[in-house]
Amino acid sequence: MRDFLPAEKARREHVLSIIRRTFREHGFDEIETPVVEDSDRLHAGLGGDNEKLSYAVMKRDLKQDDLQEAATSGDYLDLADLGLRFDLTVPLARFYASHRAELPGVFRSIQIAPVWRAERPQKGRYRQFVQCDIDIIGEAGPLAEIELITATAASLEALGFRGTNASTIRINDRRILRRIVETLGIPDASYERALITIDKEDKIGVPGVVKELVEQGLGEAATLAPILDGLSQLAGDGWELLDAPPAWLDVDAYRDLLAIRDAVDDSARLVFSPNLVRGMGYYTGTIFEVAHPSLPYSLGGGGRYDGMIGRFLGTDVPAAGLSLGFERLVELVELPEDEAANAVALVYDADVAPPQLAALKSELIASGVRTTLARRTKNTTAQLEQLAAAGYPRFAFVAATTVSARELEMRNIGAQ
Amino acid sequence: MRDFLPAEKARREHVLSIIRRTFREHGFDEIETPVVEDSDRLHAGLGGDNEKLSYAVMKRDLKQDDLQEAATSGDYLDLADLGLRFDLTVPLARFYASHRAELPGVFRSIQIAPVWRAERPQKGRYRQFVQCDIDIIGEAGPLAEIELITATAASLEALGFRGTNASTIRINDRRILRRIVETLGIPDASYERALITIDKEDKIGVPGVVKELVEQGLGEAATLAPILDGLSQLAGDGWELLDAPPAWLDVDAYRDLLAIRDAVDDSARLVFSPNLVRGMGYYTGTIFEVAHPSLPYSLGGGGRYDGMIGRFLGTDVPAAGLSLGFERLVELVELPEDEAANAVALVYDADVAPPQLAALKSELIASGVRTTLARRTKNTTAQLEQLAAAGYPRFAFVAATTVSARELEMRNIGAQ
Repeated sequence: MRDFLPAEKARREHVLSIIRRTFREHGFDEIETPVVEDSDRLHAGLGGDNEKLSYAVMKRDLKQDDLQEAATSGDYLDLADLGLRFDLTVPLARFYASHRAELPGVFRSIQIAPVWRAERPQKGRYRQFVQCDIDIIGEAGPLAEIELITATAASLEALGFRGTNASTIRINDRRILRRIVETLGIPDASYERALITIDKEDKIGVPGVVKELVEQGLGEAATLAPILDGLSQLAGDGWELLDAPPAWLDVDAYRDLLAIRDAVDDSARLVFSPNLVRGMGYYTGTIFEVAHPSLPYSLGGGGRYDGMIGRFLGTDVPAAGLSLGFERLVELVELPEDEAANAVALVYDADVAPPQLAALKSELIASGVRTTLARRTKNTTAQLEQLAAAGYPRFAFVAATTVSARELEMRNIGAQ
Repeated sequence: MRDFLPAEKARREHVLSIIRRTFREHGFDEIETPVVEDSDRLHAGLGGDNEKLSYAVMKRDLKQDDLQEAATSGDYLDLADLGLRFDLTVPLARFYASHRAELPGVFRSIQIAPVWRAERPQKGRYRQFVQCDIDIIGEAGPLAEIELITATAASLEALGFRGTNASTIRINDRRILRRIVETLGIPDASYERALITIDKEDKIGVPGVVKELVEQGLGEAATLAPILDGLSQLAGDGWELLDAPPAWLDVDAYRDLLAIRDAVDDSARLVFSPNLVRGMGYYTGTIFEVAHPSLPYSLGGGGRYDGMIGRFLGTDVPAAGLSLGFERLVELVELPEDEAANAVALVYDADVAPPQLAALKSELIASGVRTTLARRTKNTTAQLEQLAAAGYPRFAFVAATTVSARELEMRNIGAQ
């Protein structure tokens, strides 16, 4: 977990404000939930491996008996009643179930907030990190995917990801994957395990995937290889299959993907990726992944999770979402020109009285200038450079005789 | 802890943006720290009663032995290595100690962030709530107080607290309280206990305070009463004492208060309140409390805490801060006129194709209009009212034949 110093914090807030504004323009509404959720809810099987990475908050009224019982049973989680959320999807499902009556029939949510995972520290991974999620709850058709992809693409473009720096959105559908697994004759119980292997196709190639599936007892090489070869060949130009769809292609899902492709703006750079899997077990239809040419890992992802809200509400409600990984994004964004031009540092000597400084500062602020005070140090050149770096490109010296801001001689730092 | 629905979330973000902008104009810089701090740091005696209210985060690698040991020793906190912060002051002190070399000599920080306290649920108190803190580290003189008070008063004014709705800032100095306690002959060990009693003067009057101090064995009524009467008489018009300061008045502290009063803008409505105490033990000089005519409790508070940074850094650094309680503030703020005038809902029938809807929506967004889609429901009147309440005051019906946004007939909801 990290501290953010002023320059980095300002940069983060600037990037977040662009994402927030773009999502809002696209008709999404921001909500907020508490950072902790009930422990039971976080461990209900909806978080996959992330559940194991969640931080548990201890009950406040523990008794000696509770500790002894947990020591005996080994159920240490019995000592916790709350936990820090590991994603924004489980809280959203709980939120929607609690507030459905107060929300529109189709609810388009924005959540921009931190989540926590107790991962082993490694480069580019943090234990507290911000996610930017949009979700559409209550829309069963591909209009949801179209709106999610369009808003995400617009955010990325607003952040400057254009031209050779543009990101792409990979798309697939779990129904296509399910149909392939069925065609391969792999039993339902092994579905998730087979997907994990198919997902490795980029890395180990079709022969590697075939070998692994055979080793897992999930089929014979002679059956697996041709289908997986066909799948692999789709990855590049998989959009034009409908003339002669292969037997293992789920045509309904494929038609939805084409409808989505036809409706989204070109700026989305949508790529059909039939071997895209995504880790979470709750996906039921489309799945997405946001890729960027300069990154070996994804900038975000999501998909359709029609069964999940029902886990909290009792009745199924269709839902789909797309999450941007803010920490990865913010490192790639190049900020526009310095917005701090209208900021001034008043550099004063020890003999200037506080009321005088306060009056000068107030006068400048009232005229719309961001103003800070800095007592002059011995190495004034270094001090001015530090002020410029801190967002104050202009300065003026204040003398004990200065009584009005009009007497101040404003100079650009670096041009003294 | 609460969920925030779209209307309330938008209101909160709007209020926060005004506070953030005002503090920044006044030369403060925003920073951010993780929501969890080391458990040892949260229980180092700097949080007063709040330490007992902190949420503890369980260690991830607990063993059976750890549980048995804690069960035996009763030190349940040994099972936790982290905790949710209960204020923003302890994290700031830790932050400053970690990053001093990267920060300016006088550092003016903004922190706008949630804190957590496991309080018993009661009206107007939440377990997760946002604080807006500004602090100045490295400035020993009253200039720090002047800047803190001026920026806070400017924020409150920007939020609309003016005229009969204006807030006041009460000020006192711990040195004045210490001198009084010394004059009363109360021993150092009973200093904090005596302050708690003196703090009740608004409620129980001077006779009540005298009675309680006598019961605590802290003096005789004959000595206590005249001094406490003098103190109480200051509360209304305590600014004009220097001509003949009473013997129990710390004149240095009092001169600083006068310098602060003379330097801050009239909009601050500063009131000298010599019986103001503030709960935290770490205050060493000035103390503040923000009061509002419609509230029985304070909107915020703060003071000078010169010894605290030294606890983390090893060397003392002067510091003072002022914290606004955002949850109380946001309930009092009246928002300006609806900012959503430029938002439109496209109300469509089921026969309109998704790509057509997506194209119309994109066209409107590109022209600068916030746009949402709403499938027409049976009770269209109710639906339109809900859309207006959700921030879309205008709408247009989309037919299967509509191909361009120019064909849309925009109407105000309520004026159909």
